[in-house]
Amino acid sequence: MASSSGAASSPSSSTLRSRSLNSNQNMNRQNSAETNNDEIQQQQQQQQQQQCDNKKIRHRLKSKILLLIPVVLLAVSSIIALSIGQITTASTVILGAAALGMAWAVLQFLLIARIPVRSEGVSDSTGLVSGSNDEATTRRLVEIYTAIYEGAESFLRAEYTICAWFILVFSVVIFVLISWGTDWDFARGLFTSLSFILGACTSILSGYLGMKVAVYSNVRTTVSAQQSGWKLCFNTAFRAGAVMGFALCGLGIFMLYVTMLAFRIHYPLPEQWIYLTECLTGYGLGGSSIAMFGRVGGGIYTKAADDDPRNPATIADNVGDNVGDVAGMGSDLFGSFAEATCAALVLGSSIGRSGGWDAMVFPVTVSAVGIFVCLLCSFIATDIKPVKEEKDVESALKIQLISTTILMIPAVYLAAEIFLPAEFSLQKTVGTGVLTLQPWQACMCVVMGAVGGLIIGLITEYYTSHSYAPVRELADSCKTGAATNMIYGIALGYKSAIIPVLVLALVVYGSFTMCDMYGVALAAIGFLSNLATGLTIDVYGPVCDNAGGIAEMAELEPYVREKTDALDAAGNTTAAIGKGFAIGSAALVSLALFGAFVTRIRIASDNALFAEGVNMLQPLTFAFLIIGGMIPFAFAAMTMKSVGVAAMEMVMEVQRQFDEKPHLLDANPTERPDYDACIAISTKASLKEMVPPGAMVIFTPLLTGIFFGVYAVSGLLVACYFYVELRRSLDNAKKYIEKASPDSELKGKGSDIHKAAVVGDTVGDPFKDTSGPALNIVMKLMAVLSLVFADTFYATNGGAGVFQL
Amino acid sequence: MASSSGAASSPSSSTLRSRSLNSNQNMNRQNSAETNNDEIQQQQQQQQQQQCDNKKIRHRLKSKILLLIPVVLLAVSSIIALSIGQITTASTVILGAAALGMAWAVLQFLLIARIPVRSEGVSDSTGLVSGSNDEATTRRLVEIYTAIYEGAESFLRAEYTICAWFILVFSVVIFVLISWGTDWDFARGLFTSLSFILGACTSILSGYLGMKVAVYSNVRTTVSAQQSGWKLCFNTAFRAGAVMGFALCGLGIFMLYVTMLAFRIHYPLPEQWIYLTECLTGYGLGGSSIAMFGRVGGGIYTKAADDDPRNPATIADNVGDNVGDVAGMGSDLFGSFAEATCAALVLGSSIGRSGGWDAMVFPVTVSAVGIFVCLLCSFIATDIKPVKEEKDVESALKIQLISTTILMIPAVYLAAEIFLPAEFSLQKTVGTGVLTLQPWQACMCVVMGAVGGLIIGLITEYYTSHSYAPVRELADSCKTGAATNMIYGIALGYKSAIIPVLVLALVVYGSFTMCDMYGVALAAIGFLSNLATGLTIDVYGPVCDNAGGIAEMAELEPYVREKTDALDAAGNTTAAIGKGFAIGSAALVSLALFGAFVTRIRIASDNALFAEGVNMLQPLTFAFLIIGGMIPFAFAAMTMKSVGVAAMEMVMEVQRQFDEKPHLLDANPTERPDYDACIAISTKASLKEMVPPGAMVIFTPLLTGIFFGVYAVSGLLVACYFYVELRRSLDNAKKYIEKASPDSELKGKGSDIHKAAVVGDTVGDPFKDTSGPALNIVMKLMAVLSLVFADTFYATNGGAGVFQL
Repeated sequence: MASSSGAASSPSSSTLRSRSLNSNQNMNRQNSAETNNDEIQQQQQQQQQQQCDNKKIRHRLKSKILLLIPVVLLAVSSIIALSIGQITTASTVILGAAALGMAWAVLQFLLIARIPVRSEGVSDSTGLVSGSNDEATTRRLVEIYTAIYEGAESFLRAEYTICAWFILVFSVVIFVLISWGTDWDFARGLFTSLSFILGACTSILSGYLGMKVAVYSNVRTTVSAQQSGWKLCFNTAFRAGAVMGFALCGLGIFMLYVTMLAFRIHYPLPEQWIYLTECLTGYGLGGSSIAMFGRVGGGIYTKAADDDPRNPATIADNVGDNVGDVAGMGSDLFGSFAEATCAALVLGSSIGRSGGWDAMVFPVTVSAVGIFVCLLCSFIATDIKPVKEEKDVESALKIQLISTTILMIPAVYLAAEIFLPAEFSLQKTVGTGVLTLQPWQACMCVVMGAVGGLIIGLITEYYTSHSYAPVRELADSCKTGAATNMIYGIALGYKSAIIPVLVLALVVYGSFTMCDMYGVALAAIGFLSNLATGLTIDVYGPVCDNAGGIAEMAELEPYVREKTDALDAAGNTTAAIGKGFAIGSAALVSLALFGAFVTRIRIASDNALFAEGVNMLQPLTFAFLIIGGMIPFAFAAMTMKSVGVAAMEMVMEVQRQFDEKPHLLDANPTERPDYDACIAISTKASLKEMVPPGAMVIFTPLLTGIFFGVYAVSGLLVACYFYVELRRSLDNAKKYIEKASPDSELKGKGSDIHKAAVVGDTVGDPFKDTSGPALNIVMKLMAVLSLVFADTFYATNGGAGVFQL
Repeated sequence: MASSSGAASSPSSSTLRSRSLNSNQNMNRQNSAETNNDEIQQQQQQQQQQQCDNKKIRHRLKSKILLLIPVVLLAVSSIIALSIGQITTASTVILGAAALGMAWAVLQFLLIARIPVRSEGVSDSTGLVSGSNDEATTRRLVEIYTAIYEGAESFLRAEYTICAWFILVFSVVIFVLISWGTDWDFARGLFTSLSFILGACTSILSGYLGMKVAVYSNVRTTVSAQQSGWKLCFNTAFRAGAVMGFALCGLGIFMLYVTMLAFRIHYPLPEQWIYLTECLTGYGLGGSSIAMFGRVGGGIYTKAADDDPRNPATIADNVGDNVGDVAGMGSDLFGSFAEATCAALVLGSSIGRSGGWDAMVFPVTVSAVGIFVCLLCSFIATDIKPVKEEKDVESALKIQLISTTILMIPAVYLAAEIFLPAEFSLQKTVGTGVLTLQPWQACMCVVMGAVGGLIIGLITEYYTSHSYAPVRELADSCKTGAATNMIYGIALGYKSAIIPVLVLALVVYGSFTMCDMYGVALAAIGFLSNLATGLTIDVYGPVCDNAGGIAEMAELEPYVREKTDALDAAGNTTAAIGKGFAIGSAALVSLALFGAFVTRIRIASDNALFAEGVNMLQPLTFAFLIIGGMIPFAFAAMTMKSVGVAAMEMVMEVQRQFDEKPHLLDANPTERPDYDACIAISTKASLKEMVPPGAMVIFTPLLTGIFFGVYAVSGLLVACYFYVELRRSLDNAKKYIEKASPDSELKGKGSDIHKAAVVGDTVGDPFKDTSGPALNIVMKLMAVLSLVFADTFYATNGGAGVFQL
């Protein structure tokens, strides 16, 4: 059961799930009743014990190997840095932070690994522990854990196989097109292609890692929820998030920075660093394109499994949480981070000439500083102010977000004072001339981004929490029926976007006037500066959700489920805050990428093009503005239809199983549902269906640039901003339909209102889980694609395109 | 029952409605049974006969008075034209077309008026005519007719009272702000204010007229459907549409052109005509603002009444059709026409210097030519190829659209050759310099618009007709349940927007490259050139729909209802085509208005601002682009919440009536529902709720321009283009949810799928009927507001606004 599938559908599907697992349990019971042989049972137990022990040993071994990774990586990077004699302060800080982040992630993982997968039977306090029940439950826990793990593994393997082919083909495309676009400067083609491959691989690694950690931690969260007290189970889920958060940030920064150092061997002079940063944009493109496939594929997968929560599809549903909400989101945020950094580096490449290497890599330094800050603040949640009761959970998570943002302000100021010279000059994106900047200005842009993100997050919370007026008012509207309620919900969803958009506009205006387009990129970096914490909270949600699902499937005591549900509820509100961050950052990132694109075209054309900015009254620009505005709808149409197709196949498969095994829904079923067939269908459907929308997004800017030229591309990119609005409104509307549901349930599950809420929920889901998150990536992907291929576009008839309109 | 309320809800609500009217009939029967007095009955009959006769006489008198109107208007205009000695060929053609259009409308009205409101009892062919039944039915017909008429009249009166206050206040605002903005050139303030008042009054007149004609014709369509054959009833509904179509076009052109002639007395020299056209923009603003109030108010009214189709609300529902779909749409299209013409005149005002008055008024001439073309083509539907059987209906309407478009091509070519000089020069909107144009280029722009509109219309038909693949495929998806079906529907709705958007982009690009921004305005005029026919078909739909409702309420034989339903079904498909037109034209119109705004600012600032176009990389412009993109969502939120509030009040009122009169739903009810209370609620709610969204739309550009300056406004206006996409997607998504419903009904009315379809329908309605159509107007209104106040914005610190950011 996905956290995303909402409160409304939750009860019905969990009923069905528990029915499905009743069958498992009953089978087990029947088996033991039939054999009724103590010896055999004992043997089985022993075997299992041994298997468990073996597993434990292997886990410990793996953990030690994992610990080595950051050490090895740090060594490699030091060698590279040394080899070019560039161990600057910035390099030390950046590589140190990256290594620290990864080491921290490993440490958190080891803490989780200490929890054994073992059922405690019934609560300790009652003292009614029954050994055999305990054993059976443990066996079920392991069984479920294995099933989810294998499902997720097989899906990701299949998905990443497709991605591997894509990477292979597209890296050749990049190499050829970039080489051609730069008058056969093969080095640039090769470097861009290389950084694309690195970005894509890092994204895959992040997603895969996230999935593994999540699956590993889900069951352990369930287990630790059996103990009295809240600290352990909260910390387990929180640490699962932290593994993902710190590993991803550390790895992302590390790969990016090592790539930069490596490229610097070829481009040693500050005048050449513009080429260095240009080649680096491939890193952003790699991260972004894998993110899109992950989001779309994962989204379709989740929803296909979610649409019919009957018997055999339940495991697939749980798998969906891990591949969609964890792996997909990990890739998504990694993409944002990589793109924001690339945009900032391209826009700030001129700083290198006056300020040196350390000044130019300031955006990376900010991210590195973010890792330190997030690490420090994470102690607040786990140790300084641990969770003691249910109501602490939400505030613990909120404190994380607020404290990291506040601590970032002095940290960034310090970093700016240390790494930026007292004065440095920046080439303007619009108009001619050079801006002379001081460290505090760069610092202000980052801070504006960070604080803006926090404000947007808190506003989002106001609009989505049951504690405040909007949702309470919505609950009132249930009186007159489901339809009125849904209308209110959609209206509220739209309304909640107003203030965040104003804040966003203010951040854009403020950072732009302060540091030109470079300021916008810095604001985006600021938005994402506490990414490690944001990711921690984002992963925390699905882990708790899955833990609850496992508790129910394994038929643990109800209080376990209640506990995980409480953890999950807090996670949902904070996840909404996190989403506010993600959407806001996407807008800033794509604006920064757009600015970087314009800068590159200006440089390539020697100020012949875009010298006065991007004129919207160019017929081509305007025509493509209109066309670009259509793309989110086309994309949503394609992905939603895919969900429909996949869900239909799933329903048919489930029906087939019911036909073949008519006793599947009996009170004492004698047959076991075929989970694998369902997983296979979700996998196949989502992979097949993710290709056309992906191809559309990738080829639209590419073909537009080559055939219609750079003016057309600029129109397309301006239209991208509409994604933000659409995305937010889709997301929020769904949220409110969800919010309204628990209230309408008061009228009874069988009521028409409840049914209507379920329909609304199912309809809203593909908006929220498939089209919505992917739209975020779509806008950034189109922008980064244009940036990567800027030279190619310019090379095609001087930016006029093949058709030369 | 509104055509808009969809197939799904139709059966249930009509059941309820017929139940409500059973009560009426039964009351009548009971009464006659009780009194059982032949004399009294005879007396009653005689009285009624006399009343009918009186009414007929009055109607005939009114008709003759109506005939005089165009004659008088023509005389007045001739005097004005003579008084300034400017009876040019163009003036003759324009005023002649206007008078002809109005005369034709009167003629069509007289043809409708010849049909008496009289029940034919049962079918002639069976010969079982029973006199008393006939009488009772006639009485019911008159009763229903009167109730709808009075409801519509009282709503419009209340609405227009609010509008009158708005006009009064806002005309003062215009006068003051424009006078201030033009260095206290009071003449320009006065003229702009005056043309605003004229535009608003014309819009009100059009809407009011349309409503009257529709109500008048509804019942006559019902009556004529009783006769065998299709010709008469089709022609009645078609003529009802024609009255509205031709009257509105004639009146619109007439008022506009007479205003121009009058202003010319003050601005006689071609160099001054730029001021003339600037003052004239008030006309577009007037039309547009009334249209918005009409659409929002009417939309809320309709949906408030529609949401609970139980007993007492049924009359209110029928009223809603007339005030929302007829009066609202009439104002809407009048607004489009007025704005397109104003934009074209402002952009083409420089033509006057080289080409003279006739060349400058070419856009008006095109509209005038359109009236001739539409008039000629209307004979195809009514006489040359009359409707003989059911299947003819749809093709008859389609032939109208195709034939008028085709005939427009040579007509426009001729007009261009006659009224435009062989070469004339046009001031460019973007960049400096002058374009030298030839008549064929102007003609091409108009033709591109007209043909583009037709293509968009036909594509829309392909996607919405049951005859083609998309809808059939959608019907298949019902197999797996309502939610999948709705997802498919929404996806299809998004998909259907792709080709129209591409066509639109092509038209923009083509017309822009040919004649600069003036070409876009001409394309918009081309889009709207067969407006008379478009309006005819648009009004035809609700008339047939209402006729069916009346037939059912009055309990006529079922075949009458079947006939009107067939007429309505054809009308729904063609109405979709019409909507395609309207949306496409709105995009072109607002782009043209945007261009006109830029032109005016350029002229005012003597090329200091916007000389190089509108730069999207200005921080202010970009920030307001983001803010502007939020407005459609905020607007949708406000209007949808209003629908919710109004519907809730309505449900409570209905409940109150049920509580007070518990026998209202009995088989033989002894109590009559209180229709008036429901009408009053719908009226009050819609009027109260239309003010805040209206104020937001009007004040956003005004305050933005005054406080933040012209760069901010340009960002706001670019964002408007997203309205088009949003509008279309909302509209189509609803359409498909509707389309899917009849198929799902096959599974039985009580089924879950049907219920879900009804919920989906109710949720979709406010999108389609309230927010959707109003968004169209919102984007145009914001653009025209900016245009009207351009000088005021420039006067505020040289276009930098109060804050001078």
